[in-house]
Amino acid sequence: MNDDGSRAGKLYVIGLGPGPACWLTPEASDALAEVTDLVGYFSYVERVAPREGLKVHGSDNRVEIDRSRHALELAAAGKIVGVVSGGDPGVFAMAAAVLEALENGPEAWRSLDIEIMPGVSAMQAAAARIGAPLGGDFCAISLSDNLKPWSIIARRLEAASAGDFVVALYNPASRARPMQIHDAFALLRGLRPLSTPVAFARAVGRPGERIVLTTLGEADPGLADMSTLVIIGATTTRLIARPGHRPFMLTPRGYGAGR
Amino acid sequence: MNDDGSRAGKLYVIGLGPGPACWLTPEASDALAEVTDLVGYFSYVERVAPREGLKVHGSDNRVEIDRSRHALELAAAGKIVGVVSGGDPGVFAMAAAVLEALENGPEAWRSLDIEIMPGVSAMQAAAARIGAPLGGDFCAISLSDNLKPWSIIARRLEAASAGDFVVALYNPASRARPMQIHDAFALLRGLRPLSTPVAFARAVGRPGERIVLTTLGEADPGLADMSTLVIIGATTTRLIARPGHRPFMLTPRGYGAGR
Repeated sequence: MNDDGSRAGKLYVIGLGPGPACWLTPEASDALAEVTDLVGYFSYVERVAPREGLKVHGSDNRVEIDRSRHALELAAAGKIVGVVSGGDPGVFAMAAAVLEALENGPEAWRSLDIEIMPGVSAMQAAAARIGAPLGGDFCAISLSDNLKPWSIIARRLEAASAGDFVVALYNPASRARPMQIHDAFALLRGLRPLSTPVAFARAVGRPGERIVLTTLGEADPGLADMSTLVIIGATTTRLIARPGHRPFMLTPRGYGAGR
Repeated sequence: MNDDGSRAGKLYVIGLGPGPACWLTPEASDALAEVTDLVGYFSYVERVAPREGLKVHGSDNRVEIDRSRHALELAAAGKIVGVVSGGDPGVFAMAAAVLEALENGPEAWRSLDIEIMPGVSAMQAAAARIGAPLGGDFCAISLSDNLKPWSIIARRLEAASAGDFVVALYNPASRARPMQIHDAFALLRGLRPLSTPVAFARAVGRPGERIVLTTLGEADPGLADMSTLVIIGATTTRLIARPGHRPFMLTPRGYGAGR
């Protein structure tokens, strides 16, 4: 209860992980069982089983700030609100959107009880399926230029290559933005060896999962869609052949001392 | 069963997450219940409750390749082996070590059934506690120079700064390596604004958890120990003050278009 006798609300920002229940944390499960109101992109709220007393507020993609304001309003009105995010809410997902809305919203929102719950991110699910591509230092870059200009994305791809980081590319393409991934590959082909191992990991853990291992020189960037995570190796990244299995992609922990 | 009638072994590389059961995935729990042999650093195998039929092979830190070879030998002998890792095995943990041992081991090991299971990494647990510091593009860099020379680490800190990435520093310090984090801060202070928000997140989710929010200019690098994850903001990273709560650290999703 608040000082004035009204009920204190709560806001959880919940990471659902990549999809399957086996990757949903117990913390997230418990929060989903507690909330009165569920807020999120349609395809994420649909992952949560309906139950009596749970009000579901689905919304379209690309309205993250409106959705976040709505969730904060509900919490301020005393609801126990869960904002659901695919993967980890802290990685190119709803945690930042909720805090941006908080920063620009009414002062009273800053006193709300807000808890962020991590989840398995797409990059980690993809890495686990592929081997250990993120075994060395790595960067995560979102290719979406809805919120930042291409010049920043290009600068970061250049810097990541200068540092010989493994790169995980989130949001490589969508129907509205089919070209970024082609531009990114064109840029990276001038910056890294064409023999660099590359993985396209689509919908890992969900129906339609598909893993393609290729090289920077031979990759078809058109393989990437909204559900794809692309991993570009460092100069140390290599494949380990396995009879009867897909090769493993490995970025070793060490550097510069050979194998 | 194998073709020759011997029992087929299996090797799981299991992410235990940062510590508490609320962050252990159901997939990892199920694997821990299935394995016959548990292999890992003492403090990780100790997290798993003993049970009849479970043989525990604890080992010291810094013997990852020996431990990996031992696990592969056990699997090759027909055991159901779990190699346990804190956090996510794919992020500065055991997945790469196991695959390095596989690459350099007997050809027969390559036919083994090996499954890697992701977990919540320290960087994600820290980010969730702090707000949304990883809300934009970010890098993860291990400061341990056991396996790579300092020149590579320095080159990566420079590249990460040239790209204005948020940086998560893993393994910032240990008793054997107290100075790297001091050297890293000295370098970063010449590359990024001194007002850059910095977080030291120690043992998140475990006893002794401690969060310190400071700035690049004012930070005491000596705060970092083996259990600490350090996050250095980008130029867009800022704090959101909250009455009665610790401020949130936010890296917004957008860039360059102001607030």
